[in-house]
Amino acid sequence: MFELLATDPSSSARRGRLTTPHGVVETPIFMPVGTQATVKAVHPDELRSLGAQIILSNTYHLWVRPGTEIIKEAGGLHKFMNWDRPILTDSGGYQVFSLAKLRKIKEEGCYFNNHVDGTPMFLGPETAMEIQATLGSDIAMLFDECTPWPCTHDEAKKSMELTLRWAQRCRDWVDQNRPQTGGGAQLHFPIVQGSTFQDLRERCARELVAMDFPGYAVGGLSVGEPEADMMRIAEWTCPILPANKPRYAMGLGTPPQMVELIARGIDMFDCVLPTRLARNGTAYTHEGMMNLRNAKYAKDFSPLAEDTHPMCQGFSRAYIRHLINTQEVLGLRLISLHNLHFYASLASRARLAIEQGSFAEFRAEVISRYQTRSEPTDP
Amino acid sequence: MFELLATDPSSSARRGRLTTPHGVVETPIFMPVGTQATVKAVHPDELRSLGAQIILSNTYHLWVRPGTEIIKEAGGLHKFMNWDRPILTDSGGYQVFSLAKLRKIKEEGCYFNNHVDGTPMFLGPETAMEIQATLGSDIAMLFDECTPWPCTHDEAKKSMELTLRWAQRCRDWVDQNRPQTGGGAQLHFPIVQGSTFQDLRERCARELVAMDFPGYAVGGLSVGEPEADMMRIAEWTCPILPANKPRYAMGLGTPPQMVELIARGIDMFDCVLPTRLARNGTAYTHEGMMNLRNAKYAKDFSPLAEDTHPMCQGFSRAYIRHLINTQEVLGLRLISLHNLHFYASLASRARLAIEQGSFAEFRAEVISRYQTRSEPTDP
Repeated sequence: MFELLATDPSSSARRGRLTTPHGVVETPIFMPVGTQATVKAVHPDELRSLGAQIILSNTYHLWVRPGTEIIKEAGGLHKFMNWDRPILTDSGGYQVFSLAKLRKIKEEGCYFNNHVDGTPMFLGPETAMEIQATLGSDIAMLFDECTPWPCTHDEAKKSMELTLRWAQRCRDWVDQNRPQTGGGAQLHFPIVQGSTFQDLRERCARELVAMDFPGYAVGGLSVGEPEADMMRIAEWTCPILPANKPRYAMGLGTPPQMVELIARGIDMFDCVLPTRLARNGTAYTHEGMMNLRNAKYAKDFSPLAEDTHPMCQGFSRAYIRHLINTQEVLGLRLISLHNLHFYASLASRARLAIEQGSFAEFRAEVISRYQTRSEPTDP
Repeated sequence: MFELLATDPSSSARRGRLTTPHGVVETPIFMPVGTQATVKAVHPDELRSLGAQIILSNTYHLWVRPGTEIIKEAGGLHKFMNWDRPILTDSGGYQVFSLAKLRKIKEEGCYFNNHVDGTPMFLGPETAMEIQATLGSDIAMLFDECTPWPCTHDEAKKSMELTLRWAQRCRDWVDQNRPQTGGGAQLHFPIVQGSTFQDLRERCARELVAMDFPGYAVGGLSVGEPEADMMRIAEWTCPILPANKPRYAMGLGTPPQMVELIARGIDMFDCVLPTRLARNGTAYTHEGMMNLRNAKYAKDFSPLAEDTHPMCQGFSRAYIRHLINTQEVLGLRLISLHNLHFYASLASRARLAIEQGSFAEFRAEVISRYQTRSEPTDP
């Protein structure tokens, strides 16, 4: 299912190929986020045109609206949203912990009221896997507890152990039910937790590897911890994960973070930043983030960036700034598409660099050109 | 500039061809509305793909944001918004009367505070023409007073006479300044007012015709008057307007209204309904309006309509309903595009019917199939 095509001599970066029921994914890969069965403001044809090979969708959101019954009757999530390439779904756990109200975590799972109309709901390992089986995603994530940061070693340990017990229950459900999609078997990835503690991360990774899954995720990243911790967690975890399985860092990150995590052996990424930042007029460039609301762009008739999506060509920064200032949807569309193109292109350049043995230069160039801080907005 | 290609023996419908500096417009034509230099939620490539030959943009909105200085520096409105086909701009008067605050109408023009930040502004005939000259639209509308409905004969007469005096001042400004765009002369259309009074409409039309413009608009329609009045106004006005000049009914209308006004000799239409109704989930069909928020579409996996834009194909009513319910931009995009396709297709079918001598059948079919009332929304 996962083929390792090349490795980088200067780092732990890998060039791989993951085969899923709905098609092949070349890694390292960035997955656009389609929270509610749509990548915000973007048409599936546009996703294809920017080379998106796989997208992520959120189980919790789809479960609340429109509900699994409708998606089931539609013939699964691919048909419902008119997307025939691979889809990864998360387990719903993260949104329960971050969005839902009155939540109570128990051994059996999580009781909560949903954030839309307050309906009481329950999500546990078996339910999370059953919903994802109904959605028919190509890759389904195991139900875990995303440990909050900061936390004590004891809290992180208890939480990680719950994740391990839940992983076993997910595994049992999957073994009994063997969910299929697109004429093949759905893939299931567990999530390594353990906060910023090396012993917990290593133990969690080892125990999950012993359960033998087709891929592994690193969770609990980008939840507030310093960037150095994020890198250390990847450094502790990746060597324990099998070389012949893909590795997915969930919910990340800035362009330099992505490149640095590729260097540490991560293969898959998803992040809402490209579409979320588009909403307030922030565009990615190789030099950093550009805030188009700023007055300095009012009469800047140069293009958004030299390297952009074809549909963004012909529009000036001044025009896109006007669209954002007047809350016009086309502004959001153009910046979303540009930002997704930027991330897709970053991943494709990383793949090429690893193939060509020039990843060290690529990494150094990205880091040195890219300013890690956003351009401040005018007061 | 305007060539009459065919006339319908059963009605006053005409098939024409208007040449503007940025290209040819086949009439009858529907013009999508690009209020703030963008047709809401639609990319210019998509406008081209649905056969839009000309769009309308609003002088008042562009004057307030981003301001004429920026559009001038961009090289005009066409370059600013990346649209190389014809553009018609209104004079700004209608928005001053409908949106601006603390407005005072005087002989010289209108004093008001703009609706965005309350800045005091003044718009008169000369200013309106100067701004439109700077925008570089292909067709610029003369500054008029849109008479409110209902009103007395005396009020309508005073307002119409002001419109006539303003028309002469616009004419004088244009004769002195001869604005150019796209390598040719900008066209200027005056607006016939006179509310629902036959003598006033006829007098206004005659006096404007005497001033000899390349086209004429009928204004003060769809401001609350009964539909029968709207039709009567067209019946009074069109016979007075020269046959060899295009006629434009401003701010209209429903599909049956458009067809009935074509039958009365109107050539050009603009209307915000296709994009405005998209925002609350209403799609046009040949049988009437479909409200996708309604529960009956929750599991309706049939396509939006048989005849739709290619980019809307592959999406079910149930999916689009989900997008609208979750306020996802793609829902707005798909319905906007579908509705604009519907209006463009209605105009193109009218053109073909007039050419082929089958307009009477086309008209009867549209009216009999189309329900004039919107599908009510679920309580």
